[in-house]
Parts: sequence; C-alpha cells; structure tokens
Amino acid sequence: MNTANETLNIASFAPTPRTLMGPGPSDVHPRVLGALARPTIGHLDPDFIGLMDDIKALLQYAFQTENSVTFPISAPGSAGMEACFANLVEPGDKVVVCQNGVFGGRMKENVLRCGGVPVMVEDDWGRAVDPEKVEAALGANPDAGILAFVHAETSTGAASDARVLAELARKHHCLTIVDTVTSLGGMPVKVDEWGIDAVYSGSQKCLSCAPGLSPVSFGERALKKVRNRRARVQSWFLDLNLILGYWGEGAKRAYHHTAPVNPLYGLHEALLMLREEGLENAWARHRTNHLALRAGLEALGLRFLVPEQQRLPQLNTVTIPEGVDDAAVRSRLLKEYNLELGAGLGAWAGRVWRIGLMGHSSRAENILLCVGALEALLGSMGAPVTPGALTKVQQTLENPIDVSA
Amino acid sequence: MNTANETLNIASFAPTPRTLMGPGPSDVHPRVLGALARPTIGHLDPDFIGLMDDIKALLQYAFQTENSVTFPISAPGSAGMEACFANLVEPGDKVVVCQNGVFGGRMKENVLRCGGVPVMVEDDWGRAVDPEKVEAALGANPDAGILAFVHAETSTGAASDARVLAELARKHHCLTIVDTVTSLGGMPVKVDEWGIDAVYSGSQKCLSCAPGLSPVSFGERALKKVRNRRARVQSWFLDLNLILGYWGEGAKRAYHHTAPVNPLYGLHEALLMLREEGLENAWARHRTNHLALRAGLEALGLRFLVPEQQRLPQLNTVTIPEGVDDAAVRSRLLKEYNLELGAGLGAWAGRVWRIGLMGHSSRAENILLCVGALEALLGSMGAPVTPGALTKVQQTLENPIDVSA
Repeated sequence: MNTANETLNIASFAPTPRTLMGPGPSDVHPRVLGALARPTIGHLDPDFIGLMDDIKALLQYAFQTENSVTFPISAPGSAGMEACFANLVEPGDKVVVCQNGVFGGRMKENVLRCGGVPVMVEDDWGRAVDPEKVEAALGANPDAGILAFVHAETSTGAASDARVLAELARKHHCLTIVDTVTSLGGMPVKVDEWGIDAVYSGSQKCLSCAPGLSPVSFGERALKKVRNRRARVQSWFLDLNLILGYWGEGAKRAYHHTAPVNPLYGLHEALLMLREEGLENAWARHRTNHLALRAGLEALGLRFLVPEQQRLPQLNTVTIPEGVDDAAVRSRLLKEYNLELGAGLGAWAGRVWRIGLMGHSSRAENILLCVGALEALLGSMGAPVTPGALTKVQQTLENPIDVSA
Repeated sequence: MNTANETLNIASFAPTPRTLMGPGPSDVHPRVLGALARPTIGHLDPDFIGLMDDIKALLQYAFQTENSVTFPISAPGSAGMEACFANLVEPGDKVVVCQNGVFGGRMKENVLRCGGVPVMVEDDWGRAVDPEKVEAALGANPDAGILAFVHAETSTGAASDARVLAELARKHHCLTIVDTVTSLGGMPVKVDEWGIDAVYSGSQKCLSCAPGLSPVSFGERALKKVRNRRARVQSWFLDLNLILGYWGEGAKRAYHHTAPVNPLYGLHEALLMLREEGLENAWARHRTNHLALRAGLEALGLRFLVPEQQRLPQLNTVTIPEGVDDAAVRSRLLKEYNLELGAGLGAWAGRVWRIGLMGHSSRAENILLCVGALEALLGSMGAPVTPGALTKVQQTLENPIDVSA
C-alpha cells in the first residue's frame, strides 16, 4: 500500500507561533496550554468528577446564570448551536430566526434540518438585528415558539441588543436561543437577568481556550420543552435527556460518551483565569483595547464597517483601502510578522479585514503589533498612510475616552 | 449572584496521575501530552493545512485504506458513529444491526433517530457476532441496504470477524458501517482489503491519544450514497457534504467549523508514534501483552468472560470471584495504587472487570502492576489466591505461546 510509504517522512508537528488576531481561535495563554498537557485520567475518576463540578460553577459565573444545566458540549460551537436547535425544535415548529451574517444563516439550516419552519428576519451584514423587525415578525407569527439570534456576529463584528430581543421574545411567549460564541467573556452576557432560555458559546474566542468545546446553558422553560417533546431528539450524541445523566445536577455521572478529558482541563484553566480577572474587568479590558486599536486603525485611514454604537469591542471589521490586495497583505502579515488577521466572509470577502481582540489576544502589545505592521506594510505597498498611528494607540491606552459605552 | 462567590476558592486542576487500564481512555504518552500544549494556531493557517494532510495520510495507514475521505470528526467516537449513520441512513432505510453489547444498541438508536428501520441480529453479551445469524437476516431482508456491526465490543471484550461479516454484506449488496473504536491500532483493521464502506474509531483507545476525536473513513460506494441522498443529512455539524469542503481531497479548506487545533496536534503525534512502531509490531505487542496478562490473571484464579478464540487482546474481561465486592476493589486499586480498571456494563455490572491493555497502556510494567495489585488486594480481603502469578507473567513475556493467533 502506497500510504504506508508516504507516511515515512512525517515528523512531529512544530507549529510556528503566531499572534492570533482573527475571528478565533485567539491566543491561548501558556497556563491554559500547560493545563492541556496534564496527565489524562478517566472520565469517571473521582478527581474528574470534581473538575466537572468546578467547570459547571465557573461557566455559571461566566454566563451569569444559576441554571443547573450549564456545561460544555464535547465539540465545537457549531455542535453547541445544533444541541440547542436539535433539543428545542420539533418537526413543524415555527422559529423566528434573525440573520445579519453567516451564523443566522446557519441557524436557519439547523431549523430546517430539525423539520422546523424558519421565519427569517433579515438585516444587512454589518448591522445589528433590528428589534422593530423582530417585533413585527413575532406579531405576524403568533404560532412561533422560538426566537433565535446571534448576540455577536463573528462574520461582521456587529453586536445586537440581546436584552431587548429576549424581552420581545418573552412578551410574545417565545423561548430564546442565543449565540454568544464571540461575546462570552468579552462583553456583558447576562443569561438570567436577560431571561435567555438556551445559549451556546465557544471555547476559542474570548475565553481564550483551545478550540473544540462549546459551553451551553439551558433554563427551566427550555428544559420543560425538552422533557415534553413529542418526537425523540434526532441526535443521540446531543440529546440533553441522555447527556444530563452524566453532566446533570445530582446525576450519577453515568457514561454517555467519553468526555474530552484534556480539552476540559484547558477550559477549566481558561475559565479560572477569567474568574481571577473578574468578568467586569475583562469586559472593560476588551473595551479599552478596542478603543486603542480603533484610534490606531483610524489614524491609518482605515474605516470601520459597523456603525459605532453597534461595534463589537472584540472583533473589529475594517474596509480594505482601494487598490490594496487583501490576500497579499494577510499573507505577508503572517509570513513576516507571524500575525494572523481574519478575512471577510460572503459579500465582504476580499473587502474587509476582521481583527480580533479576544481574550488573551486583547493586549496592548498585540494592538501595537497589528497597527505597526499594517502601517509598515501598507506604506511599503504604496498605500497612503498618515504617520503617528502608534502614538494614537498609546494615548488611548493611557486615557481611553469611551463615548459609546 | 451566589455562583460568583462559590467559584472563588477554585484552584488550578492537578489530576492525580493514574495508570489507565480500563476500557479507555488509555495512558497517553508524554510525547502526545506535550504535543497538546504546543502553541495554538489558526485552523486556516498554512502550517495547519500541512498538519491536516499528515493526519489524513497517517489515518489512511492506520485504517489500511486509500480512501481519500479519511479524517477525524471533531468530537468523540459517539459522534463518529452518528456521522456514519446520519450520512448513510435515510428515512425508511432498512439496516441490519448486530448487537452483542452496548454499542450495537447505540447503533440501533442511531438508525431509529435517522428514521431508519433496524433489523436486529442479537448475540449474547460476551460472544462474537454470529455470521450465520447475519447471513440469515440479510437473506430474509433483501431490501436492507446496510449492515452495521461492532468489530471490538468495548462493553464485553469480544471480537467479531469483520472480514467475514463485510464479505456477507457485499454478497447481499449491502454497505457496511463498522465500529473500530477499540480495535484500531490494537489488532488488524484492514478497511480496503476487507471491503468496509464506512468506519469510525476513537482517539482514546489503542491510539493512546486524549479522548475527544473520532477518526472516520468512507469508501466510494458510501460516498455515492451520501451524494445521492433524497433527504438532507439531519445534522449540519456532521454533514459530510459540508465537512469535505474543509477536509476533502483537493478541497479549498473552506471554513465549516473551527477545527479542534490542539487536540489534532495530539492525534498527529499519537498516529506518528503508531507509524514509528509499525502497525504489525503494535498488533503483536498487544497480543503478547494480552497473553502475559492472561497468564497472570488465570494464575490468580480469575476466569475470562469471552471464549478464547473471540477475545480482544486489548480488553480483557474477567469475572469477579464470589464474595468479592466489585466497587470496593476498584476503589482501593484507584486510591492505593492509582490504578483504574473498568466496571462491567448492563447485566454484567458488578460481575466483571474490564482490564484494558490499549496503546501506551499495553506495557509490561502495567501488567505487573495490575496482576500484583489484584494478588495483594484480593489476598488481603480473604479471597483464595494462588501465589506465583507474577512469575507466570514474566515467563509469558519471555516466551509467549499463542495457541489462538
């Protein structure tokens, strides 16, 4: 067999260390990397059961919830999204889905694959979800049972008002499914205060853990719906009724699937670091660093895609200057500075950069590297660049003036 | 919120190092643990694309296949199982499912949740799947399109003859879905030679990687069925048509979900170690160590659940002597010797121990620890124990006599 010989010259993998300022994964702190390498133990080991309890408490803190059903799905954020839809949507269920970027479209796909009927509320990519449109859709579809929306659109950098949207859902007797993949840890997410029923996130954005896990939380109203389903959940792997035998409150930790032991070590350490910093401090850090990055990027002449009041502090989308080759710049940033920025998606491909300041990536030195490297490269490539951007960064870090907060 | 205060006294997790001789996870080599801790890079980084190519080639070697669709699902083995069924089974499809333990039952659940019609072939837990019964079921159900079976039943330690079963399936114009979670790397698995159409495994058994990933491979006949489906795959996350935009042959590595970067570093290193040892050598090591463990256990008076010709070398199930308290022994082995053995499942709960010798756990020192600790503990608890078991282990390691191979 050829394949045997072809593998003979494969060596251990030595990734070039990068500064990760794309839409995720973000930089992973050495403490979290170190945690990943701790000795593997069994998923039913008493030590591991203690770790599970810790992770649940730390996730409750991060989500600001007392929901007992708060735990990480053993797969990336897309599986967390699917866990919410597969458990809550039954064939024939009508779901109002807000779409203002890639992930609202993925929600629609999930509704369809569960046999549900999506009612789409569309907004431009790069704008927040419009609550007035949502209210109109809920009013026009009194038989809808769920409102689904993305809090922080990773594809564009737009923030929607989760508090207001959840309030509208309750007023219209709908459950909410909320995507907080990019918001959790980087800006306020208040599951209980806002009355969110089902929420999912990802490990690799503002939590700054390695990718591969999806924290979720389900409130009592959502669980009631899951318990009273007419049809079985179509996914065995994501069926909450089964998973809770392992992760649930007072559960016997009965085997469902083998938990991803080492990835959970990493998530525990990352959540612990968030707890040590304090949520409010983490939100403020993301906000300040956003202002500093913005000062630098605007000084370079770059413009933001998203209107100021709707911008995510942790994901900054700027339009690429006329005549500048997107791929060439990102490729040179990677090769010459080991700096990863994100590309645009959909209609914005080739027209914007997405610059992440998420979790451990949200640091002064990263801002300086990004603004400095863009100034250096764009200048050398003949684009008009006003000097002094780095000074603007420094001034903003010293004295952040936040008109929009 | 109480949850904030409750998290204040949580510290970094320091797992007690264990010797893992249960049904998985198995011991993870320090090289693999070290790989997990390498710096996280982006899932579209050119370095990472190279890693993906390596992983595919190494998995082709491990599975002994040239299937271009050979890659790891970003979730544990149960999701790999679901990926096979969700892609290949459409509503109304009849599937012959062999059940001789826990995982055949899980296959049945998967068929039902895909809207398929399972035809069950039942064998006792602890016995191989009986090819005659399978042939009868295939003959009686000419409209069945798929035969599904477990190669190595992790719940009992029984091996079934995958070559013969796959042959029967072809004869009856059925595709095969084969569970090799516990067999891959520990005993021959020859996907191409045996004509298997869809196969899944797990990272945490004989590959000795951390749990959380599920290698899969699909042949051309299976892919034809996926491409010609009448209904959409009900899982967005596991839809092969979408995943192959990222993992497929000649694919543009288009974003589908964020790949679990660090866990894939670990899988790469684990597969590389298997390649360095050589598959045949790994199989022989598992076989020899099984014989040595068996010699020790039988010298202690313990009896195997599975008949000799059907035993898995990597998972040894022995009945617990009369009057011995299962939980007490396993708990003391863990506390006093940091040794994890597996409990029985289903009707065998409390009546058997499952002793894994998988991957890096399949070492002489582990055999000595296990047999020695059982001799010491059972003796101190008043069970009749014949002395000399460790000598039998040593003699077998020096001169393995394999009457059944």
